[in-house]
Amino acid sequence: MAQQMNVGLLGFGTVGTGVLEIIEQHQDKLAHQIGAPVKVKKVLVSSLDKDRGPAAAHTELTTNADDILLDDDIDVVVEVMGGMEQARDYMKKALEQGKHVVTANKDVMAVYGSELLKTANEQKCDLFYEASVAGGIPILRTIVEGLASDRITKMMGIVNGTTNYILTQMTKEGRLYEDVLKEAQALGYAEADPTADVEGLDAARKISILGTLGFSMNLDLDDVSVSGISSVTSQDLQYSKQLGYTMKLIGIAVRDGDKVEVSVQPTLVPHEHPLASVDDEFNAVYVYGEAVGETMFYGPGAGKLPTATAVVSDLVEVLKNKRLGVTGNSAIIPQFEKQLKTDEEIRSKYFLRIHAKDKRGTFAALTRIFDEHNVSLEKILQVPLNEGRLAEIIVVTHEVTKKDYEEVLERLQDEDVVVEIKSSYRTEGDMS
Amino acid sequence: MAQQMNVGLLGFGTVGTGVLEIIEQHQDKLAHQIGAPVKVKKVLVSSLDKDRGPAAAHTELTTNADDILLDDDIDVVVEVMGGMEQARDYMKKALEQGKHVVTANKDVMAVYGSELLKTANEQKCDLFYEASVAGGIPILRTIVEGLASDRITKMMGIVNGTTNYILTQMTKEGRLYEDVLKEAQALGYAEADPTADVEGLDAARKISILGTLGFSMNLDLDDVSVSGISSVTSQDLQYSKQLGYTMKLIGIAVRDGDKVEVSVQPTLVPHEHPLASVDDEFNAVYVYGEAVGETMFYGPGAGKLPTATAVVSDLVEVLKNKRLGVTGNSAIIPQFEKQLKTDEEIRSKYFLRIHAKDKRGTFAALTRIFDEHNVSLEKILQVPLNEGRLAEIIVVTHEVTKKDYEEVLERLQDEDVVVEIKSSYRTEGDMS
Repeated sequence: MAQQMNVGLLGFGTVGTGVLEIIEQHQDKLAHQIGAPVKVKKVLVSSLDKDRGPAAAHTELTTNADDILLDDDIDVVVEVMGGMEQARDYMKKALEQGKHVVTANKDVMAVYGSELLKTANEQKCDLFYEASVAGGIPILRTIVEGLASDRITKMMGIVNGTTNYILTQMTKEGRLYEDVLKEAQALGYAEADPTADVEGLDAARKISILGTLGFSMNLDLDDVSVSGISSVTSQDLQYSKQLGYTMKLIGIAVRDGDKVEVSVQPTLVPHEHPLASVDDEFNAVYVYGEAVGETMFYGPGAGKLPTATAVVSDLVEVLKNKRLGVTGNSAIIPQFEKQLKTDEEIRSKYFLRIHAKDKRGTFAALTRIFDEHNVSLEKILQVPLNEGRLAEIIVVTHEVTKKDYEEVLERLQDEDVVVEIKSSYRTEGDMS
Repeated sequence: MAQQMNVGLLGFGTVGTGVLEIIEQHQDKLAHQIGAPVKVKKVLVSSLDKDRGPAAAHTELTTNADDILLDDDIDVVVEVMGGMEQARDYMKKALEQGKHVVTANKDVMAVYGSELLKTANEQKCDLFYEASVAGGIPILRTIVEGLASDRITKMMGIVNGTTNYILTQMTKEGRLYEDVLKEAQALGYAEADPTADVEGLDAARKISILGTLGFSMNLDLDDVSVSGISSVTSQDLQYSKQLGYTMKLIGIAVRDGDKVEVSVQPTLVPHEHPLASVDDEFNAVYVYGEAVGETMFYGPGAGKLPTATAVVSDLVEVLKNKRLGVTGNSAIIPQFEKQLKTDEEIRSKYFLRIHAKDKRGTFAALTRIFDEHNVSLEKILQVPLNEGRLAEIIVVTHEVTKKDYEEVLERLQDEDVVVEIKSSYRTEGDMS
């Protein structure tokens, strides 16, 4: 068996501890797969005073990142410290030192991914980041391997566990958004400041990483149109259900020809769609490939062991590549020029709920507006409200352009019979 | 770029044509991934007279397998001819000639897999068979990669599209078994002789392959306890639904400690379980790993392009390994002694439907039998039938041993108040 391979670990929180434990507990299996024993030589910690438990007994702790980044014996740097600028700086320095890097950091990969991948490529190093999207699901590897003989045209991901938990509780138990959020915070599922989760930013980072990889096109976070779940109401969920849909916060990446669209929004999918039954804190990524057709990958999105397992899987691949003298990431550098769809090219169905005056001519006035902007309707539901003075009108459109639909919304706002536009959601996944 | 690598294709049916088309259409991408161009040099066909269309224009056709198996220029043999003995003989001969083999043949792998893998290992050749289980889902690769740092304890697979289509139609449309089967045969979804599908044999082959790989234990087809769907009735489906379950034909492989159990049977899963919403001809494999937790992989189980894509993915890996001078299959040879659970060790819930006399004392007589065999009940549903002379009684047990449960069935058969045992199904996947 070949010489021992050494890992430097940046960060010793939940995931870092998990990585160290897995490597220690599976030494034989890992050595067998890699063809060489592997050891965590050093760990970067914030303080040497804290008791790190038995996991730390066989490794060296340091508070100085250079002890790892400049150590010639270290083959791979594993970044699980989180955060943004510092993590990026360390990863860049590691690559510049010719070290391979494995990271679980979606924030850094979404913002500095292209820059870091470029450095990795120049240095002929691997930069792997499976754990940055849906920790327990080997989705990046599946995309890369599938790409050799297929062409991905659509990805839809439930990639944020917190919002999926909140929407599931609201849908299944009829609970209120605020109540579920508070409970999730108390249980530690949601952060004290939940903005990144509930406003869709976390999901946007992940779908931009998926889109960049799946379409081989350098998508920035700014290219992702984002809206979150904080204004979703129980009524929306009720009416969606009645019309055959389940609401999920979905990151969508679509390609038509050479042009793409990437967005995150609360989205209605038919009850029968595989994404509709992904509940609670679970994640799932649905991928449509021209050859393979519909596939979906389901699993835990976060958690100590799922995330650490993903990191170790990457580590195994990097160490194999290193031992064989090949790097695996040349396939992962974006190859195509970014081309974003315009609003005239983005096509989707929409669910629209409005309150209108309940009088003769209302519906005629509405349909005239829809007609004038080429928006045809697939489903209509009208319910009297407020002792008959108001009507709750819900429609689901056929597939229309975003531009036409937004013009309709604008027209409706000025229309006399419309009292209020209550909500509007993208609708995806109808089997055709 | 390195020298061209040559493939010999055994079989030119639907899948073989797909493999050839994908390799021709994706030459650049494949060459980039492998680091060398790849070409289908020869194809084994049954007759040279048949028009093979444009796909055959750039390759050499032969009716003599030795033209491929003994050709020193051919690096990898791809077996997509189907059948049993001849396919096995060709694969064995190819391996003995030092050629790597990729196959889509579940029949051969389920029966001769261990023998062929042994030959491959002795010859330091790769033998890959991703396409043999759930063509469109990269499940074998996911298992192998996950295994390096995790321990799989349970797999449940919907791995036969025909039976899943039949059960979906029966459940959703209330149609009769015979009608759906006839329609599926007319549409070409089911074979003229549907036995292998509907009696569970096809699924048994696949779950034995999954179990062998996931538990690293050489499981034979004879180790799989099998029952099919031909006696499933609409009433069974109705009552299951009422009690919160969906019926699927599921291949199950469970490990507790060092002992395993492998079986295929119509199984009830709760509506909320991810397998419950896998409909029509789709396949899905649910995997529980100690570290990663619950994951599920969903996609097409068959079809020209999904299966051909899986074959080409294997081919890419084999060619990479070949170019690097390493073989990938040493990890895939079973490492543990086979140890099967006894009926005292197999634990499950069960759904049981019986017709009993509708008179005082009936339920007491039944519960006495359950009690005496340690079978406790989780759900009970009783409905009067036949103007009150008969009662339809459905129970779902708590988790019990197979031995206790089968003793109960035997006792019930002799019990005076029981008129008929209508049906009995395994029940899995309750969230605990």
